[in-house]
This record gives sequence, structure tokens and C-alpha cells, in this order.
Amino acid sequence: MYRAGIVGYGNLGQAVEKILVNSKEFSLKAIFSRRNVKSNFNTKVYNTSDLNDFRGKLDIIFLCVGSFLDIENFSKNILQNFNMVDSFDTHKKLKTYIKNLDEIGKLSRTTTLSAFGWDPGLLSLERLLFEAISNFPPHTFWGNGVSQGHSNAVRNLENVIDAVQYTIPIKEGLLKAKNEKNVMLKENEKHKRLVYVCCKKGSEEKVKKQIKEMPNYFEDYKTEVVFTDKKSIERRKKHLYHKGEVIQKFDILEEDFLMDFKLKLSSNPLFTASLMVVGARVCMRLKEDKNYGAFTIFDVPMKLLFKDLNKVYDRL
Amino acid sequence: MYRAGIVGYGNLGQAVEKILVNSKEFSLKAIFSRRNVKSNFNTKVYNTSDLNDFRGKLDIIFLCVGSFLDIENFSKNILQNFNMVDSFDTHKKLKTYIKNLDEIGKLSRTTTLSAFGWDPGLLSLERLLFEAISNFPPHTFWGNGVSQGHSNAVRNLENVIDAVQYTIPIKEGLLKAKNEKNVMLKENEKHKRLVYVCCKKGSEEKVKKQIKEMPNYFEDYKTEVVFTDKKSIERRKKHLYHKGEVIQKFDILEEDFLMDFKLKLSSNPLFTASLMVVGARVCMRLKEDKNYGAFTIFDVPMKLLFKDLNKVYDRL
Repeated sequence: MYRAGIVGYGNLGQAVEKILVNSKEFSLKAIFSRRNVKSNFNTKVYNTSDLNDFRGKLDIIFLCVGSFLDIENFSKNILQNFNMVDSFDTHKKLKTYIKNLDEIGKLSRTTTLSAFGWDPGLLSLERLLFEAISNFPPHTFWGNGVSQGHSNAVRNLENVIDAVQYTIPIKEGLLKAKNEKNVMLKENEKHKRLVYVCCKKGSEEKVKKQIKEMPNYFEDYKTEVVFTDKKSIERRKKHLYHKGEVIQKFDILEEDFLMDFKLKLSSNPLFTASLMVVGARVCMRLKEDKNYGAFTIFDVPMKLLFKDLNKVYDRL
Repeated sequence: MYRAGIVGYGNLGQAVEKILVNSKEFSLKAIFSRRNVKSNFNTKVYNTSDLNDFRGKLDIIFLCVGSFLDIENFSKNILQNFNMVDSFDTHKKLKTYIKNLDEIGKLSRTTTLSAFGWDPGLLSLERLLFEAISNFPPHTFWGNGVSQGHSNAVRNLENVIDAVQYTIPIKEGLLKAKNEKNVMLKENEKHKRLVYVCCKKGSEEKVKKQIKEMPNYFEDYKTEVVFTDKKSIERRKKHLYHKGEVIQKFDILEEDFLMDFKLKLSSNPLFTASLMVVGARVCMRLKEDKNYGAFTIFDVPMKLLFKDLNKVYDRL
């Protein structure tokens, strides 16, 4: 069994722990957090500043801190000493993120499978496939559901006490994507965003402005901001459901084709965590073959995801 | 541009030609057939016995002969002299088929991407992904639509003049797959088969028995055989539509998940041909990196399917 550590103990870190304590591939040895937290399963918790003491004692780190600020800072330090899997989800920053990690991994002889959650990750893979086949980029629709990345981005704003963000697909856009060939849709024709925020009294207008203008996350979307109390947000945070869909309606030489991949998740963090555990399996296999550096799901043969390599060709 | 040849000029071969004459990656140089056929696009047609004269003059062969008997005979000879892509679709024979080709390719320093159509191929990839994530095999539903492989298998029977086979999903099975977690369904709870046959007068009973008992193709299914005239089958053969769906409803630690991949094709051969052209791109890239032998879609990084490698990470 591979010895695993978790860095970050929010929704994602807790979900990874839940899976790892039931895993026969990974043995969870330690959780690292900057906060004073208690494990849900009696795993030993250390401060992130103690991480480097574990060099040589952990085979892989599950990096579960938020994408908004934390992952970029943490990942570089971690990869100097450990193999790592993460689900970094700021699409626009991914290329630089991976390039930087690749250099570190190749120097440190460590391996990471990066950006492997359901999006980026599983849906990226579907998009790549669809575009390779049709020569035209497909549509991605998210929601209705809670985006962890966007919620976290709002939580990191000054004066914000807590927040939940719902991504909502726009029906007209979805219908166009399914029925019209090679249709172009702007992001704001496909989704709107709904944010429930609890913030310090008096800061509402400033917070609302900051949310609506936040680059990468909100500036391109129609965003509704609703102010509410902490209790109501706590209640909403218990139901982290989500949906995702990649759609491609297209023609090849006057024939009609539709490809449609749909995900429906009662728990976004638990599904992301499940994917990260599959990603960790891939990472370990790459490392064992002396493939060092940063890999994405585009860079690895799909069979490496499958548990029993002896049975993989039975699945053709 | 890569110099391409097509072996076999039935529905699939003709569809590959249609795409290649519009391609900027492949230049179609020759079609090889055992029959005396005329190209739809003025491509030069040779007898398959002339194939070996083209050694060194073609970069890749698109093997488009039927899966029922022909592919296994042809493929071994071809791979000794050429790189090759095929969409061999007898699932139960695939492992041996690929193992044999792998040995030939490694000896001959040639490369094949094998069994890459939509099933096996695209749907295999979805199944592998779904099972890697859920640790449980997903369901595949085909149809309503025309199966080229099954139609061809019937056509190869003695006394059969022509035939078309429809694969029909069973509604109750489909609903169970979408709504019940980890449900087990037998093949004959998921599909029935409908065969329209034109055969020599008096051979009906024998043909019907041969169809219903055909291993791999029909013996496990509820199969209806309808005898009709040649003209009516010709008419049906003009509409080679098909559908496919991979479904996985499952739970992880008491949370609910659904993954669902759907394909809808107005032309099965044209879609298979499109995939083979993507497969040929992969094959050429593998060969250029001196990766010889037989590869399946499970063995290659997904980025190799994507046309512009410089842009691939923008798709994450």
C-alpha cells in the first residue's frame, strides 16, 4: 500500500480522507493543515509547516487546499519533496501551473498528476475527444450545482464570512447546443451565477462589486448576489451537489452526429476526491516507470487509470 | 501529407475515402479490393494481391474489410509491410488479435492502432473510465440502429443474398441501468436483435437456425429473423444510423453518482471512418516516435488524438 498524506482539510480534504480510510491501495498516514483541525477518522493531524519532516515517509500527497490562492504556493514546495496529485481548477492559469511543476518534478525526480478532478479532468478528457473527432470545440454546461472553486474564491474576499456559489445552466443555450450544429455560444449565454453571501455588516456593496468584477471567476457572467445569514449558508453547504455536461452536435460531410457526456453528482467533493484517488494511482505508476515531472490526464495512457492492468484489454 | 491506402471497399471503405479526399493530413493514393469495383472519387483501384508492390509507397493502410472473417487474414499480412489502422469489432477475439499483431509490428517495425471505431473504440474508452472511477462495470446499450458487424456476419452465411441487422435496446433494461445502482443486467435483458434477410428460396429455415445460433453475434440474444426481398434490403441499407450509450449509476460511500455517455449517428460507417482517421493520426505519431507494434485506444495518451499538439493544453 502506498503511504499517503493529505494537505488541506476542507470539504475536499475530508472527502479524500473518507475514501482513503476505505482504500486497499493507499494507507493514509497524515493530514496537514494550517488550522487547528481534528480528523473525522482519527488520522494524525500536523501543521503544514511540519510537512518536510515527512520526506521519504510518504509516497504521495493529495493536495486539497483551495484553488483560489493556495494551490500555487503549496504545490511547488510539495513537489520538491513528494509525489503529488491535485485538482487545480483555474482553467486560465493551468498551462503555466503545469509548466512550472514539470520543471520542479524533473529536477526533484518526483511526479504529479495535476488538474485531475471532474473539471478540469474528466470533462477535459471528453472535450478533447469530442474536438479531436469533430474538429470543432464542444460545449460544456455546469450545474445546477455548487462550485467549490467559485465559493472558495468568494470566501477569500475581505469582509466575507461565508459564501456558496451556484452555477446555473441557461436553458436556451443548452437547447441550442443540443439541436444546432457547430453553434457558437458565449459563456454568458450558457451559464449564470448565483452567490449566497454572509458578510460583515456595511460591506455589502463593496463585496457585491468585488464578486461581480472578479476576473476568471465572475466578470464574464451574469451574476446574482444574495446576502443572507451564516446559518442559512451552513445549511446550503451540506448539499454540495453538481452536474456537468459536454455536448457536441456536428456534421461530417452532410451526416448528423451528437456526442453527449453527462455527470450528475450528489456530492461534488466526494466525486472529485474519487477522481484524485484514481489520479494518485496513475501518478504512482508513472513514478515507478521513472516518468518524472507534471502530467495531465491528456498525457497518460488511459489504461493507467484502471485498477487491474491484467484485465484491461477485456474492457475493449 | 501522409500517403494512405484503403483495403476493402464496402460501406466503411467508401466512407473512409469520402473523408480522405477532403483531408489535409492524408493523401489517398490507392484502394485495394478483391472485387472489381470503381471508386466514387476516381481513386485508383488495385487488386488486393497487388498490395505488397506498394511497400514503401504508402505510409498507412486503412483496413476496411469485414470483421467476420476477413480482418484477421488481411491484417497480419498488411502489418508486415505497412502501418495500419482498423476497427475490428469482435470483442471476444480482440485480445488474441492484438497480441498477434503486436508481435508482427515489433518484428516488422510497423505500427497499428487497432480496434478503433466507436465500439470497440470510443465506447471502450468510456467504459474504462467509468469502471476506473466507480470500480464497477458500466452498462452499454446499442441502437436502435444498424450494426455493420452483425449485418456482415449474416451476409457471410451460405445461401444469404443480403441482410441488415438492427440492434434494439430493451426499454426496461435501459431504465434499470439509469435508475438502479450497480444493477446487474444480462445482455439479453439489454438488447434484442432484428434481422432482415434475403436468401435463396427454400433455405429460410436453415438460415434462420444458423443466424440464431451464431456464436458471439446472436446466440446470447432474443433474435427475430424477417425474410424479405433484395430490393427492400437495399433500401434499408441506405440508412445506416446507429446509437450507443454507456451508463453508470453508482454510489461511493452513500453518495449518488451518474455518468452517461451518449452517441447518436445518422451514418455509422461515416462516424467509424472519422474515428479511424483520428486513429491513423495517432498511429503516425506513434510510428514517428519509434513505438512499434499494436496499440489500442487504452495504450496511448489522449493528446495524440488531437490535431494541433501546440494547443492541446488550452483544452484542459
